[in-house]
Amino acid sequence: MSILVLGTVALDTVKTPFGVRKNILGGSAVHFAMSARFFSRVNLVAIVGEDFPEKHTEFFKKKQIVLTSLIRSRGSTFHWEGEYQGDLNTALTHKTELGVLSAFAPQVHHSQRKIEYIFLANVDPDIQKKLLENMHAPKFVGLDSMNYWIKHKRASLLRLLKEVDIYVANDAEAREISGESNLLKAARYIRKIGPDMVLIKKGEHGVLFYCDKFLFSLPAYPTDKVIDPTGAGDTFAGAFMGYLSKVKSINERSLKRAIMYGTILASFNVEGFGTERTASLSPNEIAKRLKHFERIIRPN
Amino acid sequence: MSILVLGTVALDTVKTPFGVRKNILGGSAVHFAMSARFFSRVNLVAIVGEDFPEKHTEFFKKKQIVLTSLIRSRGSTFHWEGEYQGDLNTALTHKTELGVLSAFAPQVHHSQRKIEYIFLANVDPDIQKKLLENMHAPKFVGLDSMNYWIKHKRASLLRLLKEVDIYVANDAEAREISGESNLLKAARYIRKIGPDMVLIKKGEHGVLFYCDKFLFSLPAYPTDKVIDPTGAGDTFAGAFMGYLSKVKSINERSLKRAIMYGTILASFNVEGFGTERTASLSPNEIAKRLKHFERIIRPN
Repeated sequence: MSILVLGTVALDTVKTPFGVRKNILGGSAVHFAMSARFFSRVNLVAIVGEDFPEKHTEFFKKKQIVLTSLIRSRGSTFHWEGEYQGDLNTALTHKTELGVLSAFAPQVHHSQRKIEYIFLANVDPDIQKKLLENMHAPKFVGLDSMNYWIKHKRASLLRLLKEVDIYVANDAEAREISGESNLLKAARYIRKIGPDMVLIKKGEHGVLFYCDKFLFSLPAYPTDKVIDPTGAGDTFAGAFMGYLSKVKSINERSLKRAIMYGTILASFNVEGFGTERTASLSPNEIAKRLKHFERIIRPN
Repeated sequence: MSILVLGTVALDTVKTPFGVRKNILGGSAVHFAMSARFFSRVNLVAIVGEDFPEKHTEFFKKKQIVLTSLIRSRGSTFHWEGEYQGDLNTALTHKTELGVLSAFAPQVHHSQRKIEYIFLANVDPDIQKKLLENMHAPKFVGLDSMNYWIKHKRASLLRLLKEVDIYVANDAEAREISGESNLLKAARYIRKIGPDMVLIKKGEHGVLFYCDKFLFSLPAYPTDKVIDPTGAGDTFAGAFMGYLSKVKSINERSLKRAIMYGTILASFNVEGFGTERTASLSPNEIAKRLKHFERIIRPN
């Protein structure tokens, strides 16, 4: 089983009530990969600058991430600086330096073009579209985006939505793209204009999954140990897509299971800065927490 | 099976994006009763004024609510005027006229003093305490309160919390009383200072139940038909307590089932102004929605 993810590799500076970390490894594709790797062979399509530390490349290799389509280019690695206050629900962005990302033209190595499970993490929808055109046999394509693209590249995003199987959005994005404040209405709207499935992530409030055949609502894993929520959504998507690429079957049972794993992996991600917690995670810890979670949500 | 509820009977004026209703039947004890009646014989302990329309008394009787301890007193019935805007998540209070409620001394008829299941809906904690002292054999006591009492009668409320079995709070109240923004920490704090069980209602995000033996997290029933959320919390409590008084057994299974029913009844309550929807509800509709909900939350 293999999965391909297009997204960012970043050097993040993050401040939360629990401390500050400077230039730590981050980015959507990284958080996705750190989670998906428990289920599938992860192929990274991304770009880094000359300043990208060799130790991070070694770290990827150690985690069995396939780097064939990771471009190293002249310039600086994408840099994000942000802060979380109070209950850590909202990120305050202090700085975004695109660096090499501003001229990113993803190249998928021919050996990777037959990969069937594809996730387009948050980058310019035109770049996401180009990546998709590179692929020979997409079977299940997931798409993430963000408010910036919804606002500034709406037409591109709407076109792309018709070509993917699932749109993975957070609640604010689902509301923004649909113009509906009620999430069920938002999900229905998105389904109507595009993908067969819509997955709305509500942070600490869990997720809502919508498709024609069934609805699925799942709370988050209750935790009081939120250190740094950066990348929780991508970590969710990584386990969700990774699990589906492992079982190679898309049905109510597998989708719900994938959402359960997404929830569990995301709950680990927030327990440490950057990839600290997901990088050191063991399959045994995942299995144990999943079991605990199953009891917490069991209605009988 | 019988249950006794202490709370308010009100004449509410409510404005939502779907319209305005003037002086409609409302109040915590009313919403509780309209929901608990599906499971148990509801005994109302409350006060109304001379202006309380006879048709409402007739309505209670028709719904088999026991009115033996409903006082009719000189003065005006408690009146609340509020408005919901946008996504209807927060009530804007325009007016609160206590009327007869300001001199309310609850009287429980001797025939009702042996009732074992008791719910103290939101009124002054000193009044809640007096009611409890009237009861001869409390077996399971639930308590609701609100930010006003947490702020202005904290000592009374804290004393009372030690005498009840479950504290039913919304997220804002749980945060206020505990000083913790994380709801799991808030629940643990409340458990430590008082009741064996804590139930935190998160509105459209469902509920979190906490006790020493288990945690239970349940999303809300996903609905896009929110007309008027007034009384949703009391409606939840009504089904929750009503169900427990029906099965006369407090364990993981019955508590989870009670929370499921609370969720379902609350989802009906918001679909109409005041008691419109819960008053006309049939057991068959409840059973049908419960079945649908079970599929929506089923993780496999």
